[in-house]
Amino acid sequence: MRLIKTVFELEAWFVETGRRNKTLGFVPTMGYLHEGHCSLIKAAKAQNELVVVSIFVNPTQFAPGEDFENYPSDIDRDCKLAIISGADAVFNPEVEEIYIPGSSTVIEVTGEMTKKLCGASRPMHFKGVTTVVGIFFNIVRPDKAYFGQKDAQQALIIKKMVMDLHIPVEVIVCPIVREADGLAMSSRNVYLSPEERKQASCISGALQKAAEYLENGVEDRCNVVQLVEIIESHIRRQNMASIDYVRIIDGETFDDIAVIKPGRTVLAAVAVRFGKTRLIDNRILSISWEVQKCL
Amino acid sequence: MRLIKTVFELEAWFVETGRRNKTLGFVPTMGYLHEGHCSLIKAAKAQNELVVVSIFVNPTQFAPGEDFENYPSDIDRDCKLAIISGADAVFNPEVEEIYIPGSSTVIEVTGEMTKKLCGASRPMHFKGVTTVVGIFFNIVRPDKAYFGQKDAQQALIIKKMVMDLHIPVEVIVCPIVREADGLAMSSRNVYLSPEERKQASCISGALQKAAEYLENGVEDRCNVVQLVEIIESHIRRQNMASIDYVRIIDGETFDDIAVIKPGRTVLAAVAVRFGKTRLIDNRILSISWEVQKCL
Repeated sequence: MRLIKTVFELEAWFVETGRRNKTLGFVPTMGYLHEGHCSLIKAAKAQNELVVVSIFVNPTQFAPGEDFENYPSDIDRDCKLAIISGADAVFNPEVEEIYIPGSSTVIEVTGEMTKKLCGASRPMHFKGVTTVVGIFFNIVRPDKAYFGQKDAQQALIIKKMVMDLHIPVEVIVCPIVREADGLAMSSRNVYLSPEERKQASCISGALQKAAEYLENGVEDRCNVVQLVEIIESHIRRQNMASIDYVRIIDGETFDDIAVIKPGRTVLAAVAVRFGKTRLIDNRILSISWEVQKCL
Repeated sequence: MRLIKTVFELEAWFVETGRRNKTLGFVPTMGYLHEGHCSLIKAAKAQNELVVVSIFVNPTQFAPGEDFENYPSDIDRDCKLAIISGADAVFNPEVEEIYIPGSSTVIEVTGEMTKKLCGASRPMHFKGVTTVVGIFFNIVRPDKAYFGQKDAQQALIIKKMVMDLHIPVEVIVCPIVREADGLAMSSRNVYLSPEERKQASCISGALQKAAEYLENGVEDRCNVVQLVEIIESHIRRQNMASIDYVRIIDGETFDDIAVIKPGRTVLAAVAVRFGKTRLIDNRILSISWEVQKCL
């Protein structure tokens, strides 16, 4: 496994490995890898001849006052986890290597999709994400790129960018990986105090409650207002939890939906703060035949 | 020579021609080809094994009231000129092939570079240009792409986009091709009435005057205010000409300059309206030793 710091070294490694005639899978990360990232690397390894993992804490997707300066980092541990999971190279460039001095070009998915949910709390966030992912796609030129379903809105926006700009990369979204108590894996979980960490399992618990409620549903339960109430009330039982949003949305467009209709992907998406730590999670909801009857 | 209408057909043509192992030159145009375009195609042919010319009148770079609806078109003639000049394929997609329905992603070079000169008269223009060129680069994936020096600001902005986003394309800018009387070749010259056409040669004439003035310069002539005055007064002699801008700028940054310094590329850039027709032109200025002395 090779640790690569510059675009120049990466190009040399491409020549060395004969990547021109090989399929390449790419896993972009901000480092401090966890089992969620590892699952992406393993998926990439299973589907490609070469796997590149990038570790780059992207300044343009953080607002002032967010955790850019303190984002957790452990490059040695990351390299070990990347190797174990099947990476052939870790690309860990400096900021100036990606954003050359005076850089001023942005890639932006405009419209409602980037303004709601996390886009409402973090207005410049997705423009930073699409710009840096677009840059990495140009540098790495992968056949397939892997993203986690935990960042569902990010994955949707990247898919839209790729489609709109005809970027020759297949975007693959892998399932959320969870801790034993259900908490979605995130590099930011390390910020939580022991008590916050304990309470944070309420998020996945609330999504589980909503799923069960729908699965055992009766006719009057297809209204999303009730679903949101189930999720919110479960989270509110934890005194350290502060809800940013709870939304029941169309999985293709992220538009709010009033009634759950069969045959469409429906997502329950949640953001909750514990102190300064903002956690997100989501769950695809399926509806039983009993519920569908009432539509 | 192949006329290709869809991305799917283009991909098939790539397979057929074995382009994976060939160098590819790309000449993006809005059609209605003239000798300026032909010079780009010839340059591409000289430097690449395959040459693709695109003909696409890009709606997003026109403002309401501009000439999108009436932009001149003659695809049969264009194909003939493209063949003669050395094109292997002409890619002439419909708008919906490039901008898929619901498309909302933009590529934008932000900052002063896109706001001055033509960006001041046409505020959304360059965002449309960078977006469509970025899309075509993703579809065609050329090794080299060819642009004309007549659209100097466009060429500079595309170079900046390519550099900032690490797009793996070499941008090559070819010299302006002129009519016998000096008028820079442009598809829009066809809009001019016979009298306007006659008067329009004043633009290149004015740039020529400025160049001669500097070449024969004396110490007090290095001030750009004088240069601008020379150009403007020459154009104003034509009663149908209305000046949009005359600027003496740094050729690397397009910043206004007060004094011409040796060792830097200096550009005289001009936009002039004749009736509804807006023409642009520019000239790289060199300075004699006598002038340099006064700096």
